[in-house]
Amino acid sequence: MATGGVPFDALSSLDPETFAGESRAVINFLADYYRDVETYQVQPQALPGCLRALLPDAPPENGEPMDVILEEVRTHIVPALTHWQSPKFFGYFPMNASTAGFAGEMLSTGLNIVPFMRVASPAATELESAVVDWMGKLVGLPDRFLFSGGGGGVLHGSTCEAVVCTLAAARDRALSRLGHEGILRLVVYASDQSHCTFQKGARIVGIPRSNFRIIPTTAASGYGLTAASVRDAVEADVASGLVPLYLCATVGTTGLGAVDPVRDLGELAQRHGIWLHVDAAYAGSALICPEFQHHIDGAELADSVSMNPHKWFLTNMDCCCLWVASPAALTSALSTNPEYLSNVTEESAGAGVVDYKDWQIALSRPFRAMKLWVVLRRYGGAGMRAYVRRHVEMARWFEQALEADGRFEVVAPTRFSLVTFRLRPRHEGDGDAVDGLNRRLLVAVNASGRAFMTHFVVDGKFVIRMAVGGAMTEMRHVHDTWELVREKAEEVGALQNERNVLK
Amino acid sequence: MATGGVPFDALSSLDPETFAGESRAVINFLADYYRDVETYQVQPQALPGCLRALLPDAPPENGEPMDVILEEVRTHIVPALTHWQSPKFFGYFPMNASTAGFAGEMLSTGLNIVPFMRVASPAATELESAVVDWMGKLVGLPDRFLFSGGGGGVLHGSTCEAVVCTLAAARDRALSRLGHEGILRLVVYASDQSHCTFQKGARIVGIPRSNFRIIPTTAASGYGLTAASVRDAVEADVASGLVPLYLCATVGTTGLGAVDPVRDLGELAQRHGIWLHVDAAYAGSALICPEFQHHIDGAELADSVSMNPHKWFLTNMDCCCLWVASPAALTSALSTNPEYLSNVTEESAGAGVVDYKDWQIALSRPFRAMKLWVVLRRYGGAGMRAYVRRHVEMARWFEQALEADGRFEVVAPTRFSLVTFRLRPRHEGDGDAVDGLNRRLLVAVNASGRAFMTHFVVDGKFVIRMAVGGAMTEMRHVHDTWELVREKAEEVGALQNERNVLK
Repeated sequence: MATGGVPFDALSSLDPETFAGESRAVINFLADYYRDVETYQVQPQALPGCLRALLPDAPPENGEPMDVILEEVRTHIVPALTHWQSPKFFGYFPMNASTAGFAGEMLSTGLNIVPFMRVASPAATELESAVVDWMGKLVGLPDRFLFSGGGGGVLHGSTCEAVVCTLAAARDRALSRLGHEGILRLVVYASDQSHCTFQKGARIVGIPRSNFRIIPTTAASGYGLTAASVRDAVEADVASGLVPLYLCATVGTTGLGAVDPVRDLGELAQRHGIWLHVDAAYAGSALICPEFQHHIDGAELADSVSMNPHKWFLTNMDCCCLWVASPAALTSALSTNPEYLSNVTEESAGAGVVDYKDWQIALSRPFRAMKLWVVLRRYGGAGMRAYVRRHVEMARWFEQALEADGRFEVVAPTRFSLVTFRLRPRHEGDGDAVDGLNRRLLVAVNASGRAFMTHFVVDGKFVIRMAVGGAMTEMRHVHDTWELVREKAEEVGALQNERNVLK
Repeated sequence: MATGGVPFDALSSLDPETFAGESRAVINFLADYYRDVETYQVQPQALPGCLRALLPDAPPENGEPMDVILEEVRTHIVPALTHWQSPKFFGYFPMNASTAGFAGEMLSTGLNIVPFMRVASPAATELESAVVDWMGKLVGLPDRFLFSGGGGGVLHGSTCEAVVCTLAAARDRALSRLGHEGILRLVVYASDQSHCTFQKGARIVGIPRSNFRIIPTTAASGYGLTAASVRDAVEADVASGLVPLYLCATVGTTGLGAVDPVRDLGELAQRHGIWLHVDAAYAGSALICPEFQHHIDGAELADSVSMNPHKWFLTNMDCCCLWVASPAALTSALSTNPEYLSNVTEESAGAGVVDYKDWQIALSRPFRAMKLWVVLRRYGGAGMRAYVRRHVEMARWFEQALEADGRFEVVAPTRFSLVTFRLRPRHEGDGDAVDGLNRRLLVAVNASGRAFMTHFVVDGKFVIRMAVGGAMTEMRHVHDTWELVREKAEEVGALQNERNVLK
């Protein structure tokens, strides 16, 4: 189709032949990317404005062919990406891609339905309810979080969304008793290791900033909360006339992979009517292995649990499972019933029908269940356990290598696949110098382009984090990275010695 | 790879050959779907539990081949989907898929990076900043919403996320003056035609439910707000000691496609220090055509504007553009700075660097900019204008057909591509009977499987909504749908007469 000489491809934008041809070109592009990604600098040298300078100020007036666009992705965009799928990416937490996760996302994106209510696409809602029950069983959740046990789950895009929704549910449950002015008295508790998303979520739902308690942890408890420290904070607040609302227990913290004691915290939460949320965003994937399930012992005392298949469960961005024991608490905070969404026929309405718009922040939502379902079907429970255990084994090997080399210390025990380490101080009192040395070590490792890690600070000490869990990461990459760390440690150590001499 | 006889595909889940082969199978599946979707019942007959009954209670222990999975999608899932990509889908609002939108999503999903900060993948942040400026220029936004003009934009997943973030920004700006107890006095304003997302968003950020004002509209203003009615509500609240916080102006409401007067409301908002948000979720796509840009005249008086490319702009789910005049207002409400995200090198930090985690609810986020960029490059401004105008023309044809047929009335003027209509009452006082008749007409149209529409209620009247805008919708589908509506109107009319005789 053309008007005035201009080909208006937009008018036949879903022509099946064009769709198949251009999509195959993208598949080939990505297959090449996966083949080559190991050879790229994991983190690019990309100064601010480097891409922006290559882009025109306005979109083109006339459309351009897909091959031109893909060529620009190759030449302009890929060189300024951090390669999260590189087998040598050990930063933050892994963010898995896989063939099945990609296939599921393609199906979801291609069908492009919007299952905000069951009636808006019945199969999508039913698949989601089934798949969150499947995942709940895999990670060993108590029945009360499954639809089959009176609770239920939903697929969000992020933990933060799960946190905002559960905070709103807990808040509204409390305010129905206290009146809205009670919002000024509500208190949220987390540890100094909890993810910042809890503090942000508490602010979003209107909890006063001064009512967010950050409870310190120590090396003695492996940087997990102790029930005693939470109890002291709760009792002090109650004594001041405040109302304890919500407590976060983390299984696998971001900084160090620490674990809070779910049962102890659950018993405390129940005594005080506090909503307990268990955040297993990263380590939830490990919970599919029986040898890790003791970490959520006591989960039956929690009100909600979440984990992110998009981290370490081969499910491409984005996908977060949230389970709640009381769906009614969630939906009473989040439901809306405008006329334009009411059912014109009754068959899809009524008791027992899940309308997921009332389980989340937004109305519109993608068909995420398709993605997680394809992953679970394609790889199965046994495949996923083998996958997780392989990374755990790699992380343990790295931890042992560190321990066998007297120059390093492991900062927190490697419970899952996150190793936290640093060069040791050689003499008492050289803490600041050692922090600088570790910082330079991390910068040198990342600048080599041969691996990418991130850092954390605990007890005032600079710590390097190596998070194993990439879909393409094999033991040889971990071996190479150990060689790299030793090489760079020698370089920065040598440099340090020279500086000391020069002083 | 195999262990104990079980093939653990999960261990080689990004093998390029497997990836390419299985992905091509999915592409072929989707190309077939697009070829055939016109022949499917748009809305399925799918009783509650229909899919759930076909699914086992737990995921498989061993993985299964992709062709088996795709066959189950075909036989179990597709038959119970509402086909949002059918050219005969006229319900809710369109939710466009396209070859370019799909290609962009594949690139984003395949690269699977997480650009929460610039340093976490520099190209993604820079592409996003460029692309939201491109879109802002296309829809005719004032410079103050562009990065080049001191404002800026972000890609969210939904309007509700944009609403929650701007409400939190407005709230925190007010509370910095009032103290947190001021939250009890903050008031949010919307019309009886505004999307329910504003009420939900206000609840989420902790505004008391009794402080949400729903201002009535009437046919006289085409169901748009009048500045006088908002002013009266605002002044009454101020007189009661309340604090007007936030006002929503909609360009293209969900029920009827109505337009609020942006300039009038902007002047009022400025006088009272109210945050004005312009919601152009659906009709924002039409604003790329100069003949529609008068609808946002006065936008320079607003604080924020949003529109959804995932509706009528060939961008697959999900993608919502939010622009703000003051990025600092947004980031001061939403920023977090945990140690594990601080920059170990300084090159990516500092003034002028956008860290999008502070512009949204969640930390993690997909690379949505890739998708919108591919759409804009592939179709160009001219292609997209031709695309939008084609639907506008179809909707006008349908509206004229209704007007030429004396049995129908058009309820609100068709400003974009949404037609709202009903069978007229034949006699005074038979309003209830006519509502029943229109309800049966809609049920009959949808039950035919040959089209799908939804409804609305305004001034107590049941109204049928026909939202034109599908990527594959051509004029012949609109012609066929008009024949269908006439046929079903005769059927339900005949039935009605029989019932009257029987009474």
